[in-house]
Amino acid sequence: MTRKIHLALHPYGVGGPGQHGLWKDPSVAKNASIDINYYIQQARAAEHALFDALFIVDSQFINATYPAHYLNRLEPLTLLSAVATHTRHIGLVGTASSTYNSPFNLARRFGSLDHISGGRAGWNVVTSFDTGTSRNYGLEEHLDYTTRYGRALESVRVVRGLWDSYEDDAFPADVERGVFLDPSKLHALNHEGEHFRVDGPLNLSRSPQGQPVIFQAGVSEEGRDLAAQVAEGIYAPGGSLADAHAYYTDIKTRTAAAGRDPEHIKIFIHGGPVVRGTDEAARRRAAEILDEDNDFDRNVGLLGRAFGAHDFSRYDLDAPFPDVAHLAEKGGRTGAAKIIDRARAENLTLRQVVESFSERRTSPFVGAPGTVADTIADWFAAGTFDGINLAFRNNEDLNWFVDGVVPLLQERGLFRTEYESDTLRGNLGLPIPANRNSLVRA
Amino acid sequence: MTRKIHLALHPYGVGGPGQHGLWKDPSVAKNASIDINYYIQQARAAEHALFDALFIVDSQFINATYPAHYLNRLEPLTLLSAVATHTRHIGLVGTASSTYNSPFNLARRFGSLDHISGGRAGWNVVTSFDTGTSRNYGLEEHLDYTTRYGRALESVRVVRGLWDSYEDDAFPADVERGVFLDPSKLHALNHEGEHFRVDGPLNLSRSPQGQPVIFQAGVSEEGRDLAAQVAEGIYAPGGSLADAHAYYTDIKTRTAAAGRDPEHIKIFIHGGPVVRGTDEAARRRAAEILDEDNDFDRNVGLLGRAFGAHDFSRYDLDAPFPDVAHLAEKGGRTGAAKIIDRARAENLTLRQVVESFSERRTSPFVGAPGTVADTIADWFAAGTFDGINLAFRNNEDLNWFVDGVVPLLQERGLFRTEYESDTLRGNLGLPIPANRNSLVRA
Repeated sequence: MTRKIHLALHPYGVGGPGQHGLWKDPSVAKNASIDINYYIQQARAAEHALFDALFIVDSQFINATYPAHYLNRLEPLTLLSAVATHTRHIGLVGTASSTYNSPFNLARRFGSLDHISGGRAGWNVVTSFDTGTSRNYGLEEHLDYTTRYGRALESVRVVRGLWDSYEDDAFPADVERGVFLDPSKLHALNHEGEHFRVDGPLNLSRSPQGQPVIFQAGVSEEGRDLAAQVAEGIYAPGGSLADAHAYYTDIKTRTAAAGRDPEHIKIFIHGGPVVRGTDEAARRRAAEILDEDNDFDRNVGLLGRAFGAHDFSRYDLDAPFPDVAHLAEKGGRTGAAKIIDRARAENLTLRQVVESFSERRTSPFVGAPGTVADTIADWFAAGTFDGINLAFRNNEDLNWFVDGVVPLLQERGLFRTEYESDTLRGNLGLPIPANRNSLVRA
Repeated sequence: MTRKIHLALHPYGVGGPGQHGLWKDPSVAKNASIDINYYIQQARAAEHALFDALFIVDSQFINATYPAHYLNRLEPLTLLSAVATHTRHIGLVGTASSTYNSPFNLARRFGSLDHISGGRAGWNVVTSFDTGTSRNYGLEEHLDYTTRYGRALESVRVVRGLWDSYEDDAFPADVERGVFLDPSKLHALNHEGEHFRVDGPLNLSRSPQGQPVIFQAGVSEEGRDLAAQVAEGIYAPGGSLADAHAYYTDIKTRTAAAGRDPEHIKIFIHGGPVVRGTDEAARRRAAEILDEDNDFDRNVGLLGRAFGAHDFSRYDLDAPFPDVAHLAEKGGRTGAAKIIDRARAENLTLRQVVESFSERRTSPFVGAPGTVADTIADWFAAGTFDGINLAFRNNEDLNWFVDGVVPLLQERGLFRTEYESDTLRGNLGLPIPANRNSLVRA
């Protein structure tokens, strides 16, 4: 069997990283980021196209210079629960911070979404790195890098332990014998670790997929190791084909080294494909989008985000890039460290950094349907991804991809022609995790 | 205009306090407490009957002797988000603990539910009092009474402050001028209190009802004062007509004393009406329900719940009620204190206390439709409630009330014949809170 490509849709609402100008598009409602009908429509379009998942990003901090996307938006779990009952096959992956949510609450909410959706939930585990966020949760400074990643790993392990609280046959509900629950099949966790103490059990049984799927976005050393240990899906940093191949190989190698099957971690690169009838028309549309987004002040805010919500507007734009190495170190943001390295190596001003920061958002998948299908097939064959996390400007751009590129990928046997399963695990080809408590009994 | 009665529906799923035997009912799915379609069906039935709200209780701790209801259930916010898009008028009130949720997360989730539902969200603020729950959140002992209530009051104030982060006209989204947000209309909160430090702003605008409605269930002195200060709906402890009148008068008096309009706090008593064609048939049905629930071991567990998940099965059933006064004091549970007082006064054994504990669950609203409508009208006229929080055994019991009693209340002008509004505030007759930040500007 040919290996198949997985596709996810990343709907933005209005605005978003690299999509500053979307709110100006007359085909998108100005309040799309808080309009549940917008997300339901996007989810249904993605399901109609047989995509694997809908992916919802998050931020817990805003200020007036942040990208419009984060300014006004629904919390991912409430959003996805509402979408769940209007879809039947598509996976629902929500972002939640392990830094500012307790494992018991995370286990309940994602477990509930998993039941509501019939086994389609995924948790994108993030750590929260900026001072702005920490100040919304009572802390003066954000947690340091090692603490955040240690906490994230322990959080995932606690949450997974809680998800297994009930064995699958714990509820005989036998009226004749008068037995609703078999109490020997309800298990406390009694976890005591460095960051958490959680007794359990969770007051929720397992769903048809056993446990929600764990996603992560690991770029740094610690992030990659966390992914290798616990992630089943990963959002890759992207870049050139060579960058993507190196990242892909590294994650698969680390996953094998962690004693796991490398097929059980699905690597998604980010793709904002732009498709039109001809390569030339697609390039024109891509340029138009870049132009709409070209807002220097917002790019300054976006750059600041990579440094933990740092305010770069206070510096002289035409002086050399300021010394903000301490922010990169504290946050452990490899993105920030790379920006500093490049600014030093090329002796860039702040203005030049802001400009180059927005340049790198161009997708490799721009062209006529055949061109884009070829490029995707080449990248896939080169070992750069298992799936693509797709973002479109508006429904016209979405439709060009779905109607133009998807059928070509299907013809080549690279994309499904029907859903394999009703669960996210089933469609991603991930196994149902054995219940640790049932194992103990066997 | 005649004052009207408000009605809420409290769907249990399977089991629940005082409904231990519901899982044995062949007309209710055994997994109803985790089946979103069950809740959607209940919400639609309640909306068809023009009820004001759906009310979802919660618990964050289980053990095998707890009531079946809490054993396996969906988290209230995810549940209600899924229900929201399948209803258009009914309010959606979810329970969440101010003890184990941060104000920023609470503000986002209830704010998101408010947008998803178009202005129908309510937050039932509870504090978590038992050791079992605290051990699911990393604490050895639960917070003491005063700390919990101080934290609850501050939590509500912070959450309300966050809900007002954006003025209502903060997003001009003016393409010609290139202005999405008017940054002068986004306000940080900069709260620093005894329990929380939260900078804000919240990344979510206000909904059509301004803010979700705050519910609470205040029984103790501190609970009643909290209600008088911040609650807009309250779940009353019930009891006899005289008890209910005394509670109603007390809450309205305290609310006026706190400088608020007593009409702006709606008091709901709990009613589990049992209606049939004749008084005699209704009494038989009520007895049948009591009989199904009569499970001594579960009643022992339920008694323990009132004492912070205390395990009473360790004591001799026929010895005098054990000395557990320290548990009542620590938890500040007036329910527990009342049980101890009665056990002492009447010199009861543990067995007798367990039996009397289940007795007090009988509804005053049992009979033929005319009888129940008369009783409700009498209680309403006597100043015992503004609304009734209704719980039914199954859909047959629900339908007897909706088809038999509701039309009689409508004939007497005591219940609406159509919704007054699309928002919960609108239907409850509560004002839209002024945005504190708009006020500052005015």
